[in-house]
Amino acid sequence: MNKYKTIREQAYESNMQLPALGLVFSTFGNVSVADRDKGVFAIKPSGLAYDKLSPENMVIVDFEANVIEGDLRPSSDTKTHAVLYKYWENIGAVVHTHSKFATSWAQTLRDIPIYGTTHADYLTTDIPCASPMADDKITGNYEYETGFQVLNHFKEHRLKYEEVEMILVGSHGPFSWGKTGEKAVFNSALLEYVAELAFITEQISPEVGRLKKSLIDKHWQRKHGANSYYGQ
Amino acid sequence: MNKYKTIREQAYESNMQLPALGLVFSTFGNVSVADRDKGVFAIKPSGLAYDKLSPENMVIVDFEANVIEGDLRPSSDTKTHAVLYKYWENIGAVVHTHSKFATSWAQTLRDIPIYGTTHADYLTTDIPCASPMADDKITGNYEYETGFQVLNHFKEHRLKYEEVEMILVGSHGPFSWGKTGEKAVFNSALLEYVAELAFITEQISPEVGRLKKSLIDKHWQRKHGANSYYGQ
Amino acid sequence: MNKYKTIREQAYESNMQLPALGLVFSTFGNVSVADRDKGVFAIKPSGLAYDKLSPENMVIVDFEANVIEGDLRPSSDTKTHAVLYKYWENIGAVVHTHSKFATSWAQTLRDIPIYGTTHADYLTTDIPCASPMADDKITGNYEYETGFQVLNHFKEHRLKYEEVEMILVGSHGPFSWGKTGEKAVFNSALLEYVAELAFITEQISPEVGRLKKSLIDKHWQRKHGANSYYGQ
Amino acid sequence: MNKYKTIREQAYESNMQLPALGLVFSTFGNVSVADRDKGVFAIKPSGLAYDKLSPENMVIVDFEANVIEGDLRPSSDTKTHAVLYKYWENIGAVVHTHSKFATSWAQTLRDIPIYGTTHADYLTTDIPCASPMADDKITGNYEYETGFQVLNHFKEHRLKYEEVEMILVGSHGPFSWGKTGEKAVFNSALLEYVAELAFITEQISPEVGRLKKSLIDKHWQRKHGANSYYGQ
Repeated sequence: MNKYKTIREQAYESNMQLPALGLVFSTFGNVSVADRDKGVFAIKPSGLAYDKLSPENMVIVDFEANVIEGDLRPSSDTKTHAVLYKYWENIGAVVHTHSKFATSWAQTLRDIPIYGTTHADYLTTDIPCASPMADDKITGNYEYETGFQVLNHFKEHRLKYEEVEMILVGSHGPFSWGKTGEKAVFNSALLEYVAELAFITEQISPEVGRLKKSLIDKHWQRKHGANSYYGQ
Repeated sequence: MNKYKTIREQAYESNMQLPALGLVFSTFGNVSVADRDKGVFAIKPSGLAYDKLSPENMVIVDFEANVIEGDLRPSSDTKTHAVLYKYWENIGAVVHTHSKFATSWAQTLRDIPIYGTTHADYLTTDIPCASPMADDKITGNYEYETGFQVLNHFKEHRLKYEEVEMILVGSHGPFSWGKTGEKAVFNSALLEYVAELAFITEQISPEVGRLKKSLIDKHWQRKHGANSYYGQ
Repeated sequence: MNKYKTIREQAYESNMQLPALGLVFSTFGNVSVADRDKGVFAIKPSGLAYDKLSPENMVIVDFEANVIEGDLRPSSDTKTHAVLYKYWENIGAVVHTHSKFATSWAQTLRDIPIYGTTHADYLTTDIPCASPMADDKITGNYEYETGFQVLNHFKEHRLKYEEVEMILVGSHGPFSWGKTGEKAVFNSALLEYVAELAFITEQISPEVGRLKKSLIDKHWQRKHGANSYYGQ
Repeated sequence: MNKYKTIREQAYESNMQLPALGLVFSTFGNVSVADRDKGVFAIKPSGLAYDKLSPENMVIVDFEANVIEGDLRPSSDTKTHAVLYKYWENIGAVVHTHSKFATSWAQTLRDIPIYGTTHADYLTTDIPCASPMADDKITGNYEYETGFQVLNHFKEHRLKYEEVEMILVGSHGPFSWGKTGEKAVFNSALLEYVAELAFITEQISPEVGRLKKSLIDKHWQRKHGANSYYGQ
């Protein structure tokens, strides 16, 4: 147990943040946190209620999705997490939820347009929505292919996963990631907030235009890069 | 009292879940839990505030809707529950609420289209909406006929109640059921969640299409059937 | 103080229900409770925060809107309450809020259409919206005229205040009443709930039709009149 | 420390009101409170979580935006606050949030139309939305120019900052102000409430008209000016 104590605790804490932030209904969400040195991640057990979680029942899995330690079956989305860790070497945590507004946008198969500075404080592009997979991949190794659906969307649209730390998987729901569990969960919450703002914005003015480039650049630079001046 | 202790307690616990989950306004909701061996069910008393409920004041009723034990009048919807228990032999609990989004869909007389995997994790069809009854049935034995309105809708549309554990009664509101009180209440909460997602989805993209068949089948199979791999 | 103790306490309790039920923002709401024998009512002081209220600081006012007892200025809507008590002899309490959905409907100057049985359980008509007053009445004795705006709307549309216990004052917000403070506050909460359901319903299906007459009659009769069978 | 104790405490209390009132997501909001005699204001440190705030870590800044006292970096919006204090001599506090409905209206670049008496109780005009700045100002001294964007909008539209205590900065979000921290925070909450009412109102009736002039004048006069009669 001790060997994976840190990621067990971080995965537990991050999973518990999801209901606290109002991002999950029932058990519909999961967080994993990786230990890059050991080549494993700790992830929520499948279908277990949040009030039954503990650091001890997090499941330890390697980047090929093999269970390394743990008595319970890991999240049904485990293979998707494993693919992201394997190919994106700089991420330390992955989150999946079915939060209301992000999931609804995913169901429309639309990217979430960048309408304001709240969005631009964290990313300079629309929040991408990956198209549903071809049928043969769905009937095949589905959760594994979901990982590649995400990877391929980033490759095709020349997005960088270090800069755009979230995606909508079309017809399904949001995934986010980050260096730490805390950051990946924050990204899930930010995505849900921006998804709601974009929803209300379009309801008020269906013909609204995107944020202009100078504001996108300014707000991104305030929080990121060499001359950032936000935070401590 | 002891004879019905288990279903009294289960019905009480399940009724108390409705306000905890935000599914009822005032007293507008009721849960019953059946004991198939004894041929009875325990149901909430009519119009009683949730903070006045106790296992002891649940009313015991048979499948012909006769009160078997209890000083209070049972829920005004009791005959609907009785019909469902009588004709659907594999259900152990029934729930009725006026939850916001499910009731609003019921008021439109529309089925809730299957737009995403959150929906498909639990059922492979649209959530059905039964049309309002003919006037002579409404002026007649109304709550009893409401039961048949549900049964007939399932028969006419060749739906299986073991697979589709919920319905909207047009102009009125949602009913759900399940093997246990816990599962029937979960189905009510799931219905409300999916109803809200579908509402937001259509607001964002009025011309959105249904989930494609391969995804419907995959998500259903993940959670149900011989090769399911969700949960423990 | 003792002379008006009962209505002071009832008015206090009922006023405190408004924030508990999520019906008020800031101090935008007030409840009064009448003592018909003494010809007075107790009402919230104007602009006082809810956490500063007590039975002792409720203001006692007669049906001509004269302050009978109390150090604080009564609600700015006091004259409206007084007019309703004076002309509608069977009401014992009045409530005014700026609750979100009811106020928004009032701002559209539309009646809230009767779309479902949740609405029909409490009234058989649309929830009426009174038109804004003529300018000379607004610049004149405004709150007093608001009372007549309500009375005249009921007279012109042949509505009975014992059956329809609520109204929207156009461009302003909802008023409700009832035999007791508890019932009048319930009516405010019911109005807000029905207003939200009607909003969602029209968003889902803009061309939705009203509830059919047989269902309106049935649901009203279940809860009211000689053969009612709802509650204990 | 003692020298600025009062404004440190007021700024702390007012900042803590923002999450309590549901006006901020994460750290997206800040309040400052000024001491006019000393020519300084106390403001939230940049990017610090609300549960980490204390009166002691508020940053003291002068009206040229120079830090006078404090170990932490002040809010990234500090220059905007400083400009408002410098040119508007009768304000004692400034608030900025990214609250949901106000921010969404800002993203549409629309003023919030005056649709009802809830709005008119506090201001007699639409809630103004300032256009985004020219690109050279954005790439230049951005937060400083945001202050002038607000000042210039008021000047060009002949609005008085003592009467209209709030604005939407287009594509960004709301700012409000007032004599005290308490009043400025109230104005932020009022703006969010009115923004939500206006949103719902337009959804129900897209062609709704503005509140008529007589009602605007009456409600303003009830609460403000020589003959006001609201409150104690």
